[in-house]
Amino acid sequence: MYVRRVRAIGVGMLGYAFMGKAHANAYRKLAYMTWPPPLLPRLVSISGRSAEAVAEAAQRYGFESHSTDWRETVADPRVELFDNGGPNNQHAAPTIAAAEAGKHVLCEKPLGRDAAEAYAIWRSVALAGVIHMCAFNYRFVPAVRLAREMLEAGELGEIRHFRARYLQDWLTDPETPWSWRLDRAAAGAGALGDLGSHVVDLARYLVGEPASVMGTTRTFVSEREGGLVDVDDAFEAVVEFDSGAVGTLEGSRVAAGRRNALCWEVNGSRGSIAFEAERMNELQVYVEGSRPSARAQGFRTVLVSEADHPFLEHWWPPGHIIGWGDTFVHEIHHLLAAIAAGREVGPHGAGFEDGYRAAEVCDAISRSGASGAREPIAYRSL
Amino acid sequence: MYVRRVRAIGVGMLGYAFMGKAHANAYRKLAYMTWPPPLLPRLVSISGRSAEAVAEAAQRYGFESHSTDWRETVADPRVELFDNGGPNNQHAAPTIAAAEAGKHVLCEKPLGRDAAEAYAIWRSVALAGVIHMCAFNYRFVPAVRLAREMLEAGELGEIRHFRARYLQDWLTDPETPWSWRLDRAAAGAGALGDLGSHVVDLARYLVGEPASVMGTTRTFVSEREGGLVDVDDAFEAVVEFDSGAVGTLEGSRVAAGRRNALCWEVNGSRGSIAFEAERMNELQVYVEGSRPSARAQGFRTVLVSEADHPFLEHWWPPGHIIGWGDTFVHEIHHLLAAIAAGREVGPHGAGFEDGYRAAEVCDAISRSGASGAREPIAYRSL
Amino acid sequence: MYVRRVRAIGVGMLGYAFMGKAHANAYRKLAYMTWPPPLLPRLVSISGRSAEAVAEAAQRYGFESHSTDWRETVADPRVELFDNGGPNNQHAAPTIAAAEAGKHVLCEKPLGRDAAEAYAIWRSVALAGVIHMCAFNYRFVPAVRLAREMLEAGELGEIRHFRARYLQDWLTDPETPWSWRLDRAAAGAGALGDLGSHVVDLARYLVGEPASVMGTTRTFVSEREGGLVDVDDAFEAVVEFDSGAVGTLEGSRVAAGRRNALCWEVNGSRGSIAFEAERMNELQVYVEGSRPSARAQGFRTVLVSEADHPFLEHWWPPGHIIGWGDTFVHEIHHLLAAIAAGREVGPHGAGFEDGYRAAEVCDAISRSGASGAREPIAYRSL
Amino acid sequence: MYVRRVRAIGVGMLGYAFMGKAHANAYRKLAYMTWPPPLLPRLVSISGRSAEAVAEAAQRYGFESHSTDWRETVADPRVELFDNGGPNNQHAAPTIAAAEAGKHVLCEKPLGRDAAEAYAIWRSVALAGVIHMCAFNYRFVPAVRLAREMLEAGELGEIRHFRARYLQDWLTDPETPWSWRLDRAAAGAGALGDLGSHVVDLARYLVGEPASVMGTTRTFVSEREGGLVDVDDAFEAVVEFDSGAVGTLEGSRVAAGRRNALCWEVNGSRGSIAFEAERMNELQVYVEGSRPSARAQGFRTVLVSEADHPFLEHWWPPGHIIGWGDTFVHEIHHLLAAIAAGREVGPHGAGFEDGYRAAEVCDAISRSGASGAREPIAYRSL
Repeated sequence: MYVRRVRAIGVGMLGYAFMGKAHANAYRKLAYMTWPPPLLPRLVSISGRSAEAVAEAAQRYGFESHSTDWRETVADPRVELFDNGGPNNQHAAPTIAAAEAGKHVLCEKPLGRDAAEAYAIWRSVALAGVIHMCAFNYRFVPAVRLAREMLEAGELGEIRHFRARYLQDWLTDPETPWSWRLDRAAAGAGALGDLGSHVVDLARYLVGEPASVMGTTRTFVSEREGGLVDVDDAFEAVVEFDSGAVGTLEGSRVAAGRRNALCWEVNGSRGSIAFEAERMNELQVYVEGSRPSARAQGFRTVLVSEADHPFLEHWWPPGHIIGWGDTFVHEIHHLLAAIAAGREVGPHGAGFEDGYRAAEVCDAISRSGASGAREPIAYRSL
Repeated sequence: MYVRRVRAIGVGMLGYAFMGKAHANAYRKLAYMTWPPPLLPRLVSISGRSAEAVAEAAQRYGFESHSTDWRETVADPRVELFDNGGPNNQHAAPTIAAAEAGKHVLCEKPLGRDAAEAYAIWRSVALAGVIHMCAFNYRFVPAVRLAREMLEAGELGEIRHFRARYLQDWLTDPETPWSWRLDRAAAGAGALGDLGSHVVDLARYLVGEPASVMGTTRTFVSEREGGLVDVDDAFEAVVEFDSGAVGTLEGSRVAAGRRNALCWEVNGSRGSIAFEAERMNELQVYVEGSRPSARAQGFRTVLVSEADHPFLEHWWPPGHIIGWGDTFVHEIHHLLAAIAAGREVGPHGAGFEDGYRAAEVCDAISRSGASGAREPIAYRSL
Repeated sequence: MYVRRVRAIGVGMLGYAFMGKAHANAYRKLAYMTWPPPLLPRLVSISGRSAEAVAEAAQRYGFESHSTDWRETVADPRVELFDNGGPNNQHAAPTIAAAEAGKHVLCEKPLGRDAAEAYAIWRSVALAGVIHMCAFNYRFVPAVRLAREMLEAGELGEIRHFRARYLQDWLTDPETPWSWRLDRAAAGAGALGDLGSHVVDLARYLVGEPASVMGTTRTFVSEREGGLVDVDDAFEAVVEFDSGAVGTLEGSRVAAGRRNALCWEVNGSRGSIAFEAERMNELQVYVEGSRPSARAQGFRTVLVSEADHPFLEHWWPPGHIIGWGDTFVHEIHHLLAAIAAGREVGPHGAGFEDGYRAAEVCDAISRSGASGAREPIAYRSL
Repeated sequence: MYVRRVRAIGVGMLGYAFMGKAHANAYRKLAYMTWPPPLLPRLVSISGRSAEAVAEAAQRYGFESHSTDWRETVADPRVELFDNGGPNNQHAAPTIAAAEAGKHVLCEKPLGRDAAEAYAIWRSVALAGVIHMCAFNYRFVPAVRLAREMLEAGELGEIRHFRARYLQDWLTDPETPWSWRLDRAAAGAGALGDLGSHVVDLARYLVGEPASVMGTTRTFVSEREGGLVDVDDAFEAVVEFDSGAVGTLEGSRVAAGRRNALCWEVNGSRGSIAFEAERMNELQVYVEGSRPSARAQGFRTVLVSEADHPFLEHWWPPGHIIGWGDTFVHEIHHLLAAIAAGREVGPHGAGFEDGYRAAEVCDAISRSGASGAREPIAYRSL
């Protein structure tokens, strides 16, 4: 009888909330959905603050053990990959410790609370010599990958514009209470760090390096039940790329009616592509000169669900859409393939240098808001 | 100095309400918008029931004279083209009289209140030897004409399906009062005559002759303030075409939220086209195998506003949309060009035979509702 | 330490292809995604034709054993629930055998190859006294359930129209080769059984019982590489409901560019709802009279992803969409909850009587195509 | 017999190209479409460069006389209203001369080639004491006016964001030849003056005065067949309003596939509104808390075509859309009503102060591109 032998990899995780659930689902699902998987995840240990909650999470997701101290998870010799889905102020220390203990690391975005912290994480982890990945999951939306492949193949010509906005509305109502995401010490920034980091990462992934930004940030409600708000509710920026392309970057948590509206558009000298995350299985594509039907030009609504579209060899017949949670299956599959092959996650995965660079751009937008000046982007190297 | 000489044509009109306004606007507008016009409309005489209203309409639209008796308009020697926008039970007698007096005729749809009346009109007018046109204005939407041209060129391959529905909602509320459109003696039929005739005409224009229909009609509210309702509120039908294509035809005046939703879709062996009148400047076009971007297949949203799109050489730069009223400019321009050239209005304009044939199909749907049987379509010839 | 105790249920499955994958994914995923699950699926045994394929499927999805004989799976005393995802001609015997062995049963749609077979399955299984469910998964799309809840609450008033079409295009190209789905002996019917059963089930779930149908079917390509096609490629029907509502039902496998386009619309006396499966996280809702913004009426694009929307308490924050595969998580969760509670799956789940009734309507459409007459629907009882 | 007496107003026009056609159509059409018109336009005189073209335009549109010298038109004692649709460098002198001759004036946008010129025009014309209007026609789109009315009524709460972009693509192809619009001396600016002035005017009309901008401009193709390009192809800006709202302003002539895509969105503390000019009859409206259907929240697609929507009392039944050209009918109707009443055109019409203020904001974006700094906006008064 035929049996595929797949090597296992021990996974330790920090965090059992939103991101913990998304990542745990991906480890379990990729094991049979992307078949055969590059490595078979073995859920070894999960850690988190609340003893009761972490115990239940362990049972729910099938972790073999659990702890209220991430150091135990990091130290566990069965753990080969450490997955950090904790709050932003829990990114640096556990991730660095894990890498220094020789574990590969996956860390949620934003990598650090600012560029300095992100750089420190990148540096320590890179020096430790492990594989590292920053969880910019929108790179693993099939439509986004397809766009990248079309851009790389030159199908849009020379790129002139990129405009992106990530709009949410959960802070629209002033009665919405305070939480750690509104605290600079815990979160680093507001919409700029949380939504802006995604927008900047997509700008870099699709168009290239920003040369400068000009922008501003706003806090519309500065006190909420439970605390003062010292991060931004929204940011607005103009971006100039090294390539000469120009555009805008925006993010807001007070855009009424926009629940998770990450939208971007690229205009090139031969075509354009547009995307909206609330219809994440679709890509709007305009390419000039297509035959037949020379007079019937216009944006095509491409339902990115074909077997020859990125990632979709793993899924369903055409037209049967996938969900947001499934992007993490692709993301962690990509990471495990890199670990199995002993190579970095780039260019399609975001390594920690990408996590650091996104933070540099976000910091520059913040600086520009204060200085009122165009802020050039300069990246540090190791 | 250069001056174009354009021959004038005297126009007499019956009706000053909705359709009177639409047609009068078209005569005035085509005189400078489609330049040089094939003939220059001279608005000679308008007739209608109310003396005060017809006098004001004459002043408003610039008719030289007016009357409460259509016979005066028909008899006026200055009138060369008689335009009948009166209610359905005023289509036969004035139109036939005008033709027999040697006037060219344009008559609103439905041509008659049933196939027998439509046939009688067609027969009399054809024997009189004048140019005749039935005002199926949706044929003159640029997107519809473009679709027809693509179909004629074979760009969609062999046609397999046509599905069309024309949904309105002005009778949704049972409190909406009675009017002549709900009276069989005046209107002939309800949704089936008013909306169904458009749907059937588009089916014939785009796909070809129906071979049979099966269907049903419904009157949901049979009494309204002011009278009994003895016409249908809605109809539903399956259609089989001579070509082998099959599909559905529907119309309703009780489709809540659908204000003027005339939608159709054609599926062929090589592509598909879809249209919605509420976005009448757009055509959804799917054609297989287009290059470049082989993986980026999908329906294109074609904004039908290019200089090389039908009728748009008369209008604005690309992307500047036209309105519903403008379709009448194209329609009457087409009629005047036919008159100037001394030829029939087909195949792009609907002659009275087309008006009669639409009525045959509508009658067959009505018969099928009563008989519970598939009703074959047979057309009479002159 | 807190540990939830969840009773396990042994699952045996027939089929490892498209539906096997969809169901296996659901069993594994609901175990942690719908927490705590009503019963914890234990994947005991899987059966299928190819020894090698079934062995790999067992390893991939985590079944404890596998067999090329479904009788072994049925006979396995650890199996408490038998899940039949085999081809249509493998629905009757295994499902009946499992029920008679006292196993609860889940069977893919269509339940039988025609109404007679579906009735026989229903009757045998009901007499066996087990819980039974027919896998009409579109009932478990959050947007569909929300629509049903709005309809039940009377938010749309009296229902007047239902129109639905399920369009695919995988047979558009005559070069597409023959497969079992094109063989009457194996499949029972073509688009009518495969797509039509979904359309009919949604009609019944949302609007109520059909009283009669009139329709036709078509086979556009009657021979393909590998065999003769003796099932329909497409069907078209008019439907009249017991309630007085009327509408259309359509399905096609040759609608170019429509990959998995299940679309339906309901019009009531106070509002309308529309749905498209390719954007299955959205519902278009028109309800009259909403305040504020009395003048801003129109269809709302409801992104059905809120915590208080059906099923979404299990998933992600608002705006983060789910996929087609996730509907099976809801479906099987519903079934397990019914089994745990010892109750039937209706009204939200489709029991085998629903599977049988869908077949009666599909058969009536087929009969109407042959007879050319309106065919009344009569249901048998046990 | 009843006859309405409407006072006539003599109109003189400069320019017979794109804008001349749009304005001439409006004068002729409003005379019967907005009935009774506030004043009855009498087309007295048209002037333009080419003797042959202006003669033909006079015949086509029905002007009584024509000239190659605008001074003749201005001096004509029959002319009471001077309508300037000439190129940008023909705005100042003729408009000022007409006002000083006591004629009311309508001038196309941008008012001047820069803020200084626009200020000079405003000042001279205001001192002359005539009625003046700058032709920002998008204010007269029914959907835009409806949005303004909702904003004024406070239906969206406190405004936090405004983002607008006006994208065209006619310069995408480097082979597109040079024209006067690419010459700074003739046009003043490129996308910034042509498209940016519209975007800024809408920002001011809908949200209020900008306090500062930061931005950049780009010329992607600096030489074209026929000349050097010394204006921008595109601009990008961040805007901060006096009210505290923030957002982005963009314009481009190189956005492939975007033919005339003027799009904007407003987010307030209680709702949001979005608009796209290519679907100019629609408004996307999100307002929280609407009943019934509390769970069915989302953006509504409002088809702005109801009798109680702005301007639509003049047009067709609901659902029958109007075109881009029809916005000029509303615009000139508004102007004639102001002249008839002897009042300024504000707040709904743009007076020359609005034309000047738009130029100040555009100039500030241009300055910011050069300075790399946030540029505050300061307006001069008379």
